[in-house]
Amino acid sequence: MFLSVKRIPHPIPPADRPDPKAAQALQEGLGGQFGEMRTMMQYFFQNMNFRGDATPYQDLLRCIATEEMGHVEQITNTINMLLDGASNPSTQPDDIPLSVALDSPNIHHFLVAAQSARPVDAAGNPWSASYVYDSGNLVLNMLYNLMLEATGRLQKCRLYEMSNNKAFRATVSYLIVRDLVHEKVFAKALETLGVSWGKALPVPRINTDNMPEVKDLESKNLNNIMWTFTNNGEPNGMAEIFKGESPFDDGGTLEVIDGFPEGADIPTYPEVPQEFSPGLDTELKKLAQQVQASG
Amino acid sequence: MFLSVKRIPHPIPPADRPDPKAAQALQEGLGGQFGEMRTMMQYFFQNMNFRGDATPYQDLLRCIATEEMGHVEQITNTINMLLDGASNPSTQPDDIPLSVALDSPNIHHFLVAAQSARPVDAAGNPWSASYVYDSGNLVLNMLYNLMLEATGRLQKCRLYEMSNNKAFRATVSYLIVRDLVHEKVFAKALETLGVSWGKALPVPRINTDNMPEVKDLESKNLNNIMWTFTNNGEPNGMAEIFKGESPFDDGGTLEVIDGFPEGADIPTYPEVPQEFSPGLDTELKKLAQQVQASG
Amino acid sequence: MFLSVKRIPHPIPPADRPDPKAAQALQEGLGGQFGEMRTMMQYFFQNMNFRGDATPYQDLLRCIATEEMGHVEQITNTINMLLDGASNPSTQPDDIPLSVALDSPNIHHFLVAAQSARPVDAAGNPWSASYVYDSGNLVLNMLYNLMLEATGRLQKCRLYEMSNNKAFRATVSYLIVRDLVHEKVFAKALETLGVSWGKALPVPRINTDNMPEVKDLESKNLNNIMWTFTNNGEPNGMAEIFKGESPFDDGGTLEVIDGFPEGADIPTYPEVPQEFSPGLDTELKKLAQQVQASG
Amino acid sequence: MFLSVKRIPHPIPPADRPDPKAAQALQEGLGGQFGEMRTMMQYFFQNMNFRGDATPYQDLLRCIATEEMGHVEQITNTINMLLDGASNPSTQPDDIPLSVALDSPNIHHFLVAAQSARPVDAAGNPWSASYVYDSGNLVLNMLYNLMLEATGRLQKCRLYEMSNNKAFRATVSYLIVRDLVHEKVFAKALETLGVSWGKALPVPRINTDNMPEVKDLESKNLNNIMWTFTNNGEPNGMAEIFKGESPFDDGGTLEVIDGFPEGADIPTYPEVPQEFSPGLDTELKKLAQQVQASG
Amino acid sequence: MFLSVKRIPHPIPPADRPDPKAAQALQEGLGGQFGEMRTMMQYFFQNMNFRGDATPYQDLLRCIATEEMGHVEQITNTINMLLDGASNPSTQPDDIPLSVALDSPNIHHFLVAAQSARPVDAAGNPWSASYVYDSGNLVLNMLYNLMLEATGRLQKCRLYEMSNNKAFRATVSYLIVRDLVHEKVFAKALETLGVSWGKALPVPRINTDNMPEVKDLESKNLNNIMWTFTNNGEPNGMAEIFKGESPFDDGGTLEVIDGFPEGADIPTYPEVPQEFSPGLDTELKKLAQQVQASG
Amino acid sequence: MFLSVKRIPHPIPPADRPDPKAAQALQEGLGGQFGEMRTMMQYFFQNMNFRGDATPYQDLLRCIATEEMGHVEQITNTINMLLDGASNPSTQPDDIPLSVALDSPNIHHFLVAAQSARPVDAAGNPWSASYVYDSGNLVLNMLYNLMLEATGRLQKCRLYEMSNNKAFRATVSYLIVRDLVHEKVFAKALETLGVSWGKALPVPRINTDNMPEVKDLESKNLNNIMWTFTNNGEPNGMAEIFKGESPFDDGGTLEVIDGFPEGADIPTYPEVPQEFSPGLDTELKKLAQQVQASG
Repeated sequence: MFLSVKRIPHPIPPADRPDPKAAQALQEGLGGQFGEMRTMMQYFFQNMNFRGDATPYQDLLRCIATEEMGHVEQITNTINMLLDGASNPSTQPDDIPLSVALDSPNIHHFLVAAQSARPVDAAGNPWSASYVYDSGNLVLNMLYNLMLEATGRLQKCRLYEMSNNKAFRATVSYLIVRDLVHEKVFAKALETLGVSWGKALPVPRINTDNMPEVKDLESKNLNNIMWTFTNNGEPNGMAEIFKGESPFDDGGTLEVIDGFPEGADIPTYPEVPQEFSPGLDTELKKLAQQVQASG
Repeated sequence: MFLSVKRIPHPIPPADRPDPKAAQALQEGLGGQFGEMRTMMQYFFQNMNFRGDATPYQDLLRCIATEEMGHVEQITNTINMLLDGASNPSTQPDDIPLSVALDSPNIHHFLVAAQSARPVDAAGNPWSASYVYDSGNLVLNMLYNLMLEATGRLQKCRLYEMSNNKAFRATVSYLIVRDLVHEKVFAKALETLGVSWGKALPVPRINTDNMPEVKDLESKNLNNIMWTFTNNGEPNGMAEIFKGESPFDDGGTLEVIDGFPEGADIPTYPEVPQEFSPGLDTELKKLAQQVQASG
Repeated sequence: MFLSVKRIPHPIPPADRPDPKAAQALQEGLGGQFGEMRTMMQYFFQNMNFRGDATPYQDLLRCIATEEMGHVEQITNTINMLLDGASNPSTQPDDIPLSVALDSPNIHHFLVAAQSARPVDAAGNPWSASYVYDSGNLVLNMLYNLMLEATGRLQKCRLYEMSNNKAFRATVSYLIVRDLVHEKVFAKALETLGVSWGKALPVPRINTDNMPEVKDLESKNLNNIMWTFTNNGEPNGMAEIFKGESPFDDGGTLEVIDGFPEGADIPTYPEVPQEFSPGLDTELKKLAQQVQASG
Repeated sequence: MFLSVKRIPHPIPPADRPDPKAAQALQEGLGGQFGEMRTMMQYFFQNMNFRGDATPYQDLLRCIATEEMGHVEQITNTINMLLDGASNPSTQPDDIPLSVALDSPNIHHFLVAAQSARPVDAAGNPWSASYVYDSGNLVLNMLYNLMLEATGRLQKCRLYEMSNNKAFRATVSYLIVRDLVHEKVFAKALETLGVSWGKALPVPRINTDNMPEVKDLESKNLNNIMWTFTNNGEPNGMAEIFKGESPFDDGGTLEVIDGFPEGADIPTYPEVPQEFSPGLDTELKKLAQQVQASG
Repeated sequence: MFLSVKRIPHPIPPADRPDPKAAQALQEGLGGQFGEMRTMMQYFFQNMNFRGDATPYQDLLRCIATEEMGHVEQITNTINMLLDGASNPSTQPDDIPLSVALDSPNIHHFLVAAQSARPVDAAGNPWSASYVYDSGNLVLNMLYNLMLEATGRLQKCRLYEMSNNKAFRATVSYLIVRDLVHEKVFAKALETLGVSWGKALPVPRINTDNMPEVKDLESKNLNNIMWTFTNNGEPNGMAEIFKGESPFDDGGTLEVIDGFPEGADIPTYPEVPQEFSPGLDTELKKLAQQVQASG
Repeated sequence: MFLSVKRIPHPIPPADRPDPKAAQALQEGLGGQFGEMRTMMQYFFQNMNFRGDATPYQDLLRCIATEEMGHVEQITNTINMLLDGASNPSTQPDDIPLSVALDSPNIHHFLVAAQSARPVDAAGNPWSASYVYDSGNLVLNMLYNLMLEATGRLQKCRLYEMSNNKAFRATVSYLIVRDLVHEKVFAKALETLGVSWGKALPVPRINTDNMPEVKDLESKNLNNIMWTFTNNGEPNGMAEIFKGESPFDDGGTLEVIDGFPEGADIPTYPEVPQEFSPGLDTELKKLAQQVQASG
């Protein structure tokens, strides 16, 4: 079972401007082959299908799967913030309020959804569960997951270089740092099984001097901390693996924190009448308000 | 953000026998168009993309999305229990330990996964995010969700009639009851917006005399209770909608409970050497055990 | 069986200008999840697979399925008219006659088809029969269909706001009105089974003052009329359901007309040599003309 | 526009026995790459997107597209008849009324549909519009269509050899004969453009001595007749192409008949309570009957 | 088995300019339904699954399949050359080095791949093996292949008209000529089985006066030559079919050459640090260089 | 460019019996996510898109890609041999010669193909190019490829345990050994970049005492040899990486051989009239024989 906390993991500053192109690029991180929906589902399935009693490995899969649920929320909200304000209600008879849709890379943001995120990648392909890898073999699963996190981080580093919109970069930077931690988790897990990584990892190697938002988050050690994402201190074996020195040559000391990060308020989104969203007319709005008044 | 609780919502009794056919049928409830992966993702997206200030409706989407995460876990574990024991390690030179795979409806259970669940439907199609519906329009979303829950429940009632394996029926019955509650949630939400359902709902109408497991769960009022699936008593507007009389003519009184059900232990699964799962030889197992010893 | 009438349901005025972007947007209404190919196929399957003797419901499915075949034709022709003239034959050695394709949202309009419509949605996804819903349950099918028509109409209202090209708006407006009638059909069908809609429907609620083409069609009562789309007065039960007051609070009186609308001539399209369409050289053209002369 | 006639093209005798395997094989002819949904849609798109004034070729596409709509109906009804009776309502507490589903090749026939046809192929893949070919080039379209009909007929000849269920063979034989006519249509169209087929066609060459149902239909000249599938004698150029000698060395004389075949009554299907189809309880049934009484 | 030769079939001049739009258009020729991946796989499967002893037909399938492997390489390299130089490493703190990606028709060229080709079509759909046709029937396979080559050539003729970038046109022109030869191969194969094509082929008919690169290649008789693509003079029956006069009225004399064309060097591509490709830092580069030094 | 050699890499003994179930299981190795079509295409794309001058790594990708083309041929032929003889021509009027198709796990083997292999996986999903991974990053590509080979080998070890049909096991065993070599190639490549594998590899660890065919091939050192699959001794850098000790603790010494293995004759397949394959009647056969006589 899972519980919800009404917070997103990391604050999202306002977008510099409505930015449907940046929003669509970010869809790769949500619904792409190496995006958050995939990591979440892959670790969840590997956790549920786990065989044998090597529970620390099973536990770490569950912790990361749970963190990824929050990442899905983080990135979806960022897409929404980038889309917000991209159209305006008609004020003149000749207005074409949604004409922006015809010049946006994903017309479905405006035509199928109400100016909001979709479970697709940056090329518009719907997320598919055929992406989910679970061989049932522990070494292979860890190896795949390491590659998955590194590829996800590679793509986010490329995304960072595609736009400097503040809302976009805040979330991309946060995920670059968290993907790095997850890369460490799986590299460390393989280290416990005898692998030594030399200088081959992490991939990609980045120069954070050119990525100030990333540098700032690393200065807060967010690149070495794992949370358990549990609510009650139940036994969790992840700390038996994720401890001691970083498996990479970056001088980090790994740490597991029982619980979850403070996070930030979930953004709210205004009504968009030109999208008929939520589409309540005066009478229905009155009914909806009666509901709230009754609370 | 979300937190994990190491429990499944409902106990699963041992399977009468290994049952790959029942396991594959149950995949529809996991990865089908009207299965738990879909309800979870659909409500999650509708919650994240919500527009306007009718927060009780946004809240109920979040509560149900979170409950569905647990249902994914419930049904995946049931599939795993039905698959467990379906093959045996080789003990004789001429054994063909995985020959059962060639007579099973989903060979991937044995060939791609290690005798465990897959994110696909009962016909083997991978789950696709193209199933997820979010129009951004409140009335339409509620209407779709009502239809979705009723269709999910219809399929589960059909599943009930396909096998009497105890593990299978326990979970199917639990989900029939919970889908009924969710049907009530969305019917009630539409009732607050002016719709009156007469005798048209629920769909399907079933005779629980022929479904003793369902009857038993309803006798515990599990067909009228919603949990918030939160961990800290944060404000939740669902109770402003889900209260009073059932929207169906079944005499129920609706109730929201802050928190989550007690649930049951998550099952564990033995090693299956013929699947190379987890595939640790003596040396690797020793390394893995050192990890645990170090905890 | 079905018969063809060489007419489209509604006249299409010439496009203001060739408009590949508007054409691609309109593809959603043709090959999208909530487009005409889908409604046509869904009602056709529900009609063919109908169980039991509640024939009026079976009949109305057949009538609408048949109307939708004409809507497929209406929207395909509109896309073609918007694409027509978007390129020109080469007249100078250095011309790049199809360069427009590289700046169009769906290059397949020019590269795979000969500047004409494709069975895909506005994001380029091919139409899939996985969209077709037929549960076999009467109430659920009616509920789904109601939601389907309302969603289709929602998308067409959004389309209306994306472009003011006259050819585009004529067809979009016609379909907004016809979808409204279909919404009434299914709402009424559920009304006969005990549901009362209050003010919740229709969705979306629109202000036709801002949609003069829609207002004009409604003034002709096209929002309250159903045709049987039969050719011989065979018994048809639809009128037993679709009669009396509109299920919505709009003062309409429902009416079934035996037969089909007058419609308009099907547009014709010129040869486009730069597309090699139809690609007949002088000799082949002569052969083709001999065929006609022989008639 | 299209009109509906409440008839199927060819009578279907009762199935020898419920036969889910034969039903699933027949799905290829409905939803397969070379099945009736595809021919219908391909010719419909080629007709709508036609360029230039060679109208006889455009007309023949429309005639065949319209005939194929009836073939979709023919084959869907045959699948339904093969599925009918495959399960029984529960009469004893321990019955498992839908257990047949677990031994059927397409569990969706019972789990998603209510023991009825689905828009998928014989391997369960949903029909996809990516199958539809329309190059806009007249010669290529005719060549593709010839190959398409021949492949469809090849598959139906293979189907004939897979089962001797009478309902199955009646429809398969009818379609073998009609596909042959369509093969002739496109071969003839290419003949008018200069191609001579020698003895290469038809494909496949079959010995109808082993296919008595086929032989019987050919004895009625159903292998040389085309109908216009129009209702009003509007001008139709198909007869300018489809006339004179068969393009194959089979001695046939081609003939176009204005109108459509007599056909047979559309089968009806009983309620299946174990599928909750149509799922009306006593009260709802009473409401549905009031509708009919009011007619 | 197959052997590699480190050559591409035809030289590619430098691109006039980086050209992501032309690159994406060219993807159709690589990963489209009628592109080189498909022809290669289709002929390979038809060759492997061949039944009976008509070996010349089996041999020609193998020769063309092998040639198509080289065409995959030719077109992939052309896409890469068109993408090369489209972005630049950051030299200033505020640079957004990959911003070009947001204005390119396929963001995956920059985000998933490292500014290089992808196995997708021009609309971004991944290549699917559902495209591969192998009926096992000789006449049908030849007919399909003829249509396939003609359609591929039609699309390449349309591509020619979309851009005048030199790199683009060099490869497109080469493939127009080679597709024409392949059209002849299958037309000739059907001629041996009794078909006479009159003036119906080739499709499309083009005026090479407007396509100087094509004209130049035809002047070298590249439109009448087939290579065996074998390395050792093993017996090959293709020459028993592909000989004598061209099946089209173009005066060509068909010729089979044992071996393969001279071709050109395979292009090489520079490192792109902003893509982290190949992503070796100083230390890893040193290790990689040690490998080479050790050779 | 590539050249064809008319040999398969490894002899296939006759199948013990026609075995459609084993044939379908083997489809995973052909068209599955971790099958030979995928490895071939993935390495081919990584080779073509390679950036930078670390040519030994680029070369090894090309060598393995080329070897995989032969593996596609090996496995396709094995599937064909397992399907051969599964049906018989009709000899009596009441025969149902293809009835076996209704009891086979992939009816398409008989209905779409002519009792032969299809480009799909063991669950019937068509191969998709969305499987192909090419990040452009050298370390990530090597890591992915290592995981890919290990997963492919894992699945083949599971296949080995599913059937003891001799034709099946001969090819599966050969591929288990070759996948192991490829696992070594990528493990070694990462070793040159600083990774040390300890005892973590290979995955899976198998006991070849229970796999005599595998043991036999390893006794011939086929688990330590790579061929270049070139025909002319062109420079090849693979040997700079694949040399010295095995990266696994198995005592092997790695060796590169210039050229390719001796292999075995490609099997031939008889005509199957009940499949209309190749479908030549007396007259067409005569024409086909004239072709050969003319050679």
